[in-house]
Amino acid sequence: MKVEIICVGTELLLGNIVNTNAAYLSEQCAALGLSCYYQQVVGDNTERLEGTLKTALHRSEVIILSGGLGPTKDDLTKETAAAVLGKKLVMDEASREHIRIFFANRDKLPTENNWKQAMVPEGCKVLYNENGTAPGVIMEAEGRHVILLPGPPNELQPLFDKSVAPYLRTLQPDVICSRTVKVCNIGESRAETMVSDLIEAQDNPTLAPYAKVGEVHFRVTAKAESEKAADKLIRPIVKELKKRFGKDVYTTDTDVTLEQAVAMLLDKYKLTITTAESCTGGQLAARLINVPGISGVFGSGYVTYADKAKHKLLGVKKSTLRKNGAVSAETAAQMAVGAAKASGADVAVSVTGIAGPDGGSEEKPVGLVYVGCFVCGRTTVKEYHFAGSRSKVRESTVAAALTQVRGCIQQQFKKKACRCAL
Amino acid sequence: MKVEIICVGTELLLGNIVNTNAAYLSEQCAALGLSCYYQQVVGDNTERLEGTLKTALHRSEVIILSGGLGPTKDDLTKETAAAVLGKKLVMDEASREHIRIFFANRDKLPTENNWKQAMVPEGCKVLYNENGTAPGVIMEAEGRHVILLPGPPNELQPLFDKSVAPYLRTLQPDVICSRTVKVCNIGESRAETMVSDLIEAQDNPTLAPYAKVGEVHFRVTAKAESEKAADKLIRPIVKELKKRFGKDVYTTDTDVTLEQAVAMLLDKYKLTITTAESCTGGQLAARLINVPGISGVFGSGYVTYADKAKHKLLGVKKSTLRKNGAVSAETAAQMAVGAAKASGADVAVSVTGIAGPDGGSEEKPVGLVYVGCFVCGRTTVKEYHFAGSRSKVRESTVAAALTQVRGCIQQQFKKKACRCAL
Repeated sequence: MKVEIICVGTELLLGNIVNTNAAYLSEQCAALGLSCYYQQVVGDNTERLEGTLKTALHRSEVIILSGGLGPTKDDLTKETAAAVLGKKLVMDEASREHIRIFFANRDKLPTENNWKQAMVPEGCKVLYNENGTAPGVIMEAEGRHVILLPGPPNELQPLFDKSVAPYLRTLQPDVICSRTVKVCNIGESRAETMVSDLIEAQDNPTLAPYAKVGEVHFRVTAKAESEKAADKLIRPIVKELKKRFGKDVYTTDTDVTLEQAVAMLLDKYKLTITTAESCTGGQLAARLINVPGISGVFGSGYVTYADKAKHKLLGVKKSTLRKNGAVSAETAAQMAVGAAKASGADVAVSVTGIAGPDGGSEEKPVGLVYVGCFVCGRTTVKEYHFAGSRSKVRESTVAAALTQVRGCIQQQFKKKACRCAL
Repeated sequence: MKVEIICVGTELLLGNIVNTNAAYLSEQCAALGLSCYYQQVVGDNTERLEGTLKTALHRSEVIILSGGLGPTKDDLTKETAAAVLGKKLVMDEASREHIRIFFANRDKLPTENNWKQAMVPEGCKVLYNENGTAPGVIMEAEGRHVILLPGPPNELQPLFDKSVAPYLRTLQPDVICSRTVKVCNIGESRAETMVSDLIEAQDNPTLAPYAKVGEVHFRVTAKAESEKAADKLIRPIVKELKKRFGKDVYTTDTDVTLEQAVAMLLDKYKLTITTAESCTGGQLAARLINVPGISGVFGSGYVTYADKAKHKLLGVKKSTLRKNGAVSAETAAQMAVGAAKASGADVAVSVTGIAGPDGGSEEKPVGLVYVGCFVCGRTTVKEYHFAGSRSKVRESTVAAALTQVRGCIQQQFKKKACRCAL
């Protein structure tokens, strides 16, 4: 069954706000097994909204409209949708009462145009809105389902969850499930080449790659009559992806991020971590601290932007800074060792580089970055060359640092295990 | 002149990502004086993309497509758009060379499918992409302008600014100028209420508010026959906004960010700054280091997530941590003073709070944050209550910390100036 999402509002067309409703509705509909092929955004304009809705009715069975249900003259989604489906607007007494109570509870008087919100298309299903005065509406006509929801996300989301999702479930026999295989340490093209046969052969389940900074995510989605049957379709593909990408697969859980995977690895081996950052200036630490409950493994981090700070806080030798420079493998190594020493952490990740736009030279161009990893006494430094703006270089650096420290921990502990086995 | 935005990508239709490109492009086009009546989102599917583009060509003069220019088989925006406009794809040698260098700089080899990105529609204008391998493209046919941009925002935005905006400016007979008045220290509703009369009376220039985290930006846009004439229309509104918001206006320069305004203020008074962060975990330092050339005022920062680190690195008293807790005004104050002392900086900003989702209590709920500012010997602490997710609380905290330190420096130096005058 096909769903189409139409978001109504001039503020979207002016770019004043980001369209989070479209993302929310799409994600929810995908989870319910509805196929969304189109999203549209149109302003508060009768003629254009009418045209947009007619196009949607032509090609999709379920149409969800958000926005334009407010009390002002601008708001005309309900009037327009009712007219397109040939339905009259009638007073809904329960909605009228809801509006009366809503204002009374706030010690306010409704204005004349608030009562307009109690008018609904005849024969529709009214969805009562606990968080605002605009009711939602479900209309049915000629095998089409037109659903109107208020624009504010804090009204739209509860209404969808409580009233729309159960309604849509009754329309849809199939269940849709998906899993995400997340891969680091590889570029999008190379990753896609490695699975091009799987992508080409895809049908049910489908396989879609998503490029992220320093990562590629593969989403495997199956449609079946039950969750169990869908899972059975998904499992072999996930297994195959894990086989092909090996240890570069850092998770097969949609909700787990790269920083979380690192945190879990640290937790597994009972390790603590610290950071020593120059060009990323705290971004690496901030990403680790994205993880709720990170306090078990992360106690402190250092932002050492100036050479003086690198020497004073991390003990980088003045001679190294003079001879090799702040952006060098030697400095990165000493930063990592020094941070581990100063903090007492088992693992330290250091970053030093030239994020630009200035500060580059022929020998050390913008984008040159060194990442040092100290893991329980062993230090590894890698050199990177990133392209792009200052913020892109910094973002890529953080992803590379997380990937590198993950690899170093894995390698170190694989070895230790070997040693123990001997 | 009408513009229509088409964002291509299955990940948008699945709700995996929020469509920030549509908001960005719409905002930029509005600033250039183009009217956007429609945004569309469609998946990586030839037939549906073709239909969507044809509809757009029918009703809009400028069509901007984003996404689907990657190297994978999924990516077919360029192929489809060229076919709709009846143009062949030809190899662009400069793009080919760009891709070769892009990979060589990374010590990597392009895969066969990377070369596909060097194919462009014949006779088009190629927009070279410094941040990725997909070039942008401008095609012209029968009075229509079709612009293709890569999907990743860090590639799309610089390409738009550098190549698309100047191109669009040449299509418009009128000159459109805009200025942005950026206000901190105030909420969106209150800010809007304070200028509702100006918003209602708007015609030329127009006045549009944009809510950002911890800030409100007012964009004043005028259309006129010359830049000078447009500027003359804009100036009185900017003056009025500055009058109403007073010192909460931190810039009237579109390109200046809040962190830059703080950096400029530090530079003006020859002050250095340091940071001491708990719940923001490096995000505040990272935002300051967004500013190129910040090394003149920022040398080092501390991420002290654990109590032990707050004591050891910043000298927060153990008794304070025990009695008042890590999230308290007292701890924030001692963190700021300690960071200034440890680093030798003139100014220190400290942050301690409960970002959630766990760790809250009735007395200290999630969202409770203390920000301490030490400015040349004087320490001020403010208490905040932020709503939303862990990342929202942390983002709001960083904005509040920048706003607060800006205010403290201003106040302190206003006083010093007074003292000197006496």
